[in-house]
Amino acid sequence: VSNAASSGSDFGPVLVIGAGLIGGSIGLALRRRGIDVFLEDVNHQSLATAESIGVGTDAKALAQSDAVPTVVVVAVPPSSAGMVLAQATKRFPEATITDVSSVKAPVLDQARLAGADMARVVGGHPMAGRETAGAASSRADLFDDRMWIICAPDDAQSDRVEKVRQLATLCGAIPVEMAAEDHDAAVALISHVPQILSSALAGQLASAPEGHVVLAGQGLRDMTRIAGSDSALWTDILSANSANVQVVLRGLIGTLESLQEDLAEATSAESVRGFLDRGGQGKLRIPGKHGTGNLEFTEVMVMIADEPGELARLFGAVGEVDVNLEDVRIEHVLGKPSGLVGLFVKPSSTSVLIEGLSARGFDVR
Amino acid sequence: VSNAASSGSDFGPVLVIGAGLIGGSIGLALRRRGIDVFLEDVNHQSLATAESIGVGTDAKALAQSDAVPTVVVVAVPPSSAGMVLAQATKRFPEATITDVSSVKAPVLDQARLAGADMARVVGGHPMAGRETAGAASSRADLFDDRMWIICAPDDAQSDRVEKVRQLATLCGAIPVEMAAEDHDAAVALISHVPQILSSALAGQLASAPEGHVVLAGQGLRDMTRIAGSDSALWTDILSANSANVQVVLRGLIGTLESLQEDLAEATSAESVRGFLDRGGQGKLRIPGKHGTGNLEFTEVMVMIADEPGELARLFGAVGEVDVNLEDVRIEHVLGKPSGLVGLFVKPSSTSVLIEGLSARGFDVR
Repeated sequence: VSNAASSGSDFGPVLVIGAGLIGGSIGLALRRRGIDVFLEDVNHQSLATAESIGVGTDAKALAQSDAVPTVVVVAVPPSSAGMVLAQATKRFPEATITDVSSVKAPVLDQARLAGADMARVVGGHPMAGRETAGAASSRADLFDDRMWIICAPDDAQSDRVEKVRQLATLCGAIPVEMAAEDHDAAVALISHVPQILSSALAGQLASAPEGHVVLAGQGLRDMTRIAGSDSALWTDILSANSANVQVVLRGLIGTLESLQEDLAEATSAESVRGFLDRGGQGKLRIPGKHGTGNLEFTEVMVMIADEPGELARLFGAVGEVDVNLEDVRIEHVLGKPSGLVGLFVKPSSTSVLIEGLSARGFDVR
Repeated sequence: VSNAASSGSDFGPVLVIGAGLIGGSIGLALRRRGIDVFLEDVNHQSLATAESIGVGTDAKALAQSDAVPTVVVVAVPPSSAGMVLAQATKRFPEATITDVSSVKAPVLDQARLAGADMARVVGGHPMAGRETAGAASSRADLFDDRMWIICAPDDAQSDRVEKVRQLATLCGAIPVEMAAEDHDAAVALISHVPQILSSALAGQLASAPEGHVVLAGQGLRDMTRIAGSDSALWTDILSANSANVQVVLRGLIGTLESLQEDLAEATSAESVRGFLDRGGQGKLRIPGKHGTGNLEFTEVMVMIADEPGELARLFGAVGEVDVNLEDVRIEHVLGKPSGLVGLFVKPSSTSVLIEGLSARGFDVR
C-alpha cells in the first residue's frame, strides 16, 4: 500500500449508502484522513443523527454540485445489499462500488442478477462491530487494525480491487483478500454459529426457574454475552448465509447427539472425555489478542478497596515498577466495598510486578 | 449466623480430604480465621504442594495427637465422593461430614448406599472455581461472597446443617440451602450444558482450515473460554449429573433442529427472529456482577499509548474526577503500540467522567 493511499490525498469523495454503525464508522474514519464523505439513508432520522455527529454531509449536496463519488460504500443489511450495489453501478457509471455485508457470495450473486456492472463491484467485510447498533454508536477507530475481508468477483478490474484495499487501509484496517465462498464458510463457523449457540443457550434461561438462573456464574455470562445482538440484522445474516450455517450447525447437532448417547450409556466415559479434549484442542487454535498465537499471560490478583482513588494508586504503582499490562479485569464481590483486580502481564514480568506491588503495601494474592 | 461462628473461635479442627484447588482454597480460607486444618490426599505430591503453600498440616500429625476433627470436608472428584463420605462417617464417629462436589443427589445417594451415617452428612457445593486446577492454584479468597449451596439429606441433624453453614460463612461465602435434586437440575442448565456447548464449538475449530480460524473475534473467544477446562474432572461431573444434563441437552438439540429446519425454508424468517429474540429475553434474566439484576453500565472508551505509566496517568485522572469504576477492559490493537481502555461506570457518572478526562487531555472516544 502506497503512502499516497494512506494519506488519503487522492481518494474520494466517498458516498456511504446506509447510515448505521458500520456506515457511520467508515464516514468518521475517512473524515479523520480529510476525505469528503457524503451520506444517504432511507431513514431521515438515521441520516440526521449521522450528520450531527460528523459522519459526513447529506448526499443531496452532492447532487447539487459538480462532485461525483469515486467510491460508493453500500452499508445496508445483506438482504438489500445486492440490489443497492446494482443500482449504484447504474447511478455512478465511473465509481468503484463496494459493500460491507457480513455475507458475501449471495450479495454479489444478487448484484449480478440485478444487472450490476460487476467490473466495478468489489465485495468487502470489515471484521468489526459493537453490541450497540445505529449511527450514534459509530467510532472512527472501529476498524483500527481489524481485518477487512475483500472478495473480488472474477470480472472485477484490478484497479477497482486496489481502490477497495485503499479504502480499508484508510479506515485503519488490514485488507485480506479471500474468495467469497471461502469467506462465507469461515464466518458461518467463527461468527454465525457461535451467535446461534449463544442465543439457544440464553433462550433456555427464558423459561427456567428464577432460583436456577440466580446461580449463574462467569461461564454462563461469557457464553450469553452476544445473545443480546440485534435480532433483525441477525435474521438477515443467518438467512443470507443459510447454506453454510446449516453445514456447521448439522455437524454441531451431530456432535451433541453423540454426546447425548454417550451420556445415556454409563460405560462411555472415554467418549465424553474425547469430546471435551477435542474442545480443548480447538480452543488452542484461536489466535491471541495481539495476533501472536495463543500467547498466555500470567494473572496477578490484587485485592483493593472499591473506592475512587484506589485503582489510581494501584496503576501508579504498576507504572513505577515499569511493567506493561496486557489486560486488566476487575472482579467485584457481591455486596462488598472491595474488589479483586486481575493484572495480566507477560510471564517474565510476573515476579517483578508481585515484588514491586507487595513492597508498596498492596494486598497481592 | 452468630459472630462466634464468623470469628471461628469454636470451630475445628477441620480435616480436608483431597488437596486440589477447592480443598486447598478451603484450607487457606479457614486458616486465615485461625482454624486448624489437616490434610489428606492419596497423591503425595499434591499433599506436599498444598502443605508448602500453607493450606494445612499433613493429617498424619492428627493421628499422632489427641485432636479429632469436628468437621471433615471431602474434596475429591464426584465419582469417589460418596464412598469417601461414607468412610469418613466411620473413621470419625463424632464429626460433621460434608463435601464440595458440583453434583449433589448422586453423591449423597452413593454415600447412603455405602453405609454412611446420614445423620451427620450434609452436602455442599461452593459456586466458585478457576480455569487452573490443583492445590498450587488455591486462593484464600476463592469463595468470598460466592454462593455455597447446602443440600441437607432428610435425616441430617439440624446442628450438622448449621455447622456446614458456619463452614461456608467462615470461608467467606454465602450459604444457600436447596434440595439436592433442585441443585442438580440448576447446575445442568447454568454450568454443565454451557460447558458442553463451549467444548462442542471449540471442537469444530480443531479440524477447520487455518485461514478460517484466524478470523476469530471476541465473540468466539468468549464462547470458547471455558473449553480449556480439566476434561477428566468434567467427564466425572457430566457422568454424575447425566440425567439432568440430558434433559437440558435434549431441549437444546430440539431448538437447534427447529432452527436448522427454519433456515432450510426461505420463508421462515419470523421463526428465526423469534429464536434470536428468545435468547435476548433469556440473557436479561442473568443477574449482574453485583447481584443487583442486569444493571447496565456505560462504557467510556479512551485511547492511550500502550506503555508503562499511561494506565497510571489514566486511573490517576479517574481518581481525581472522583468516579467509581465498575469494570475495566483493555482492547489492544493488532501490532500497534496503543490500546483502547473501556471504563465502565454508572450511567449517572458518565458525563462527569468524560468531561474530567477530556479536560485532562485524554483521547476520549
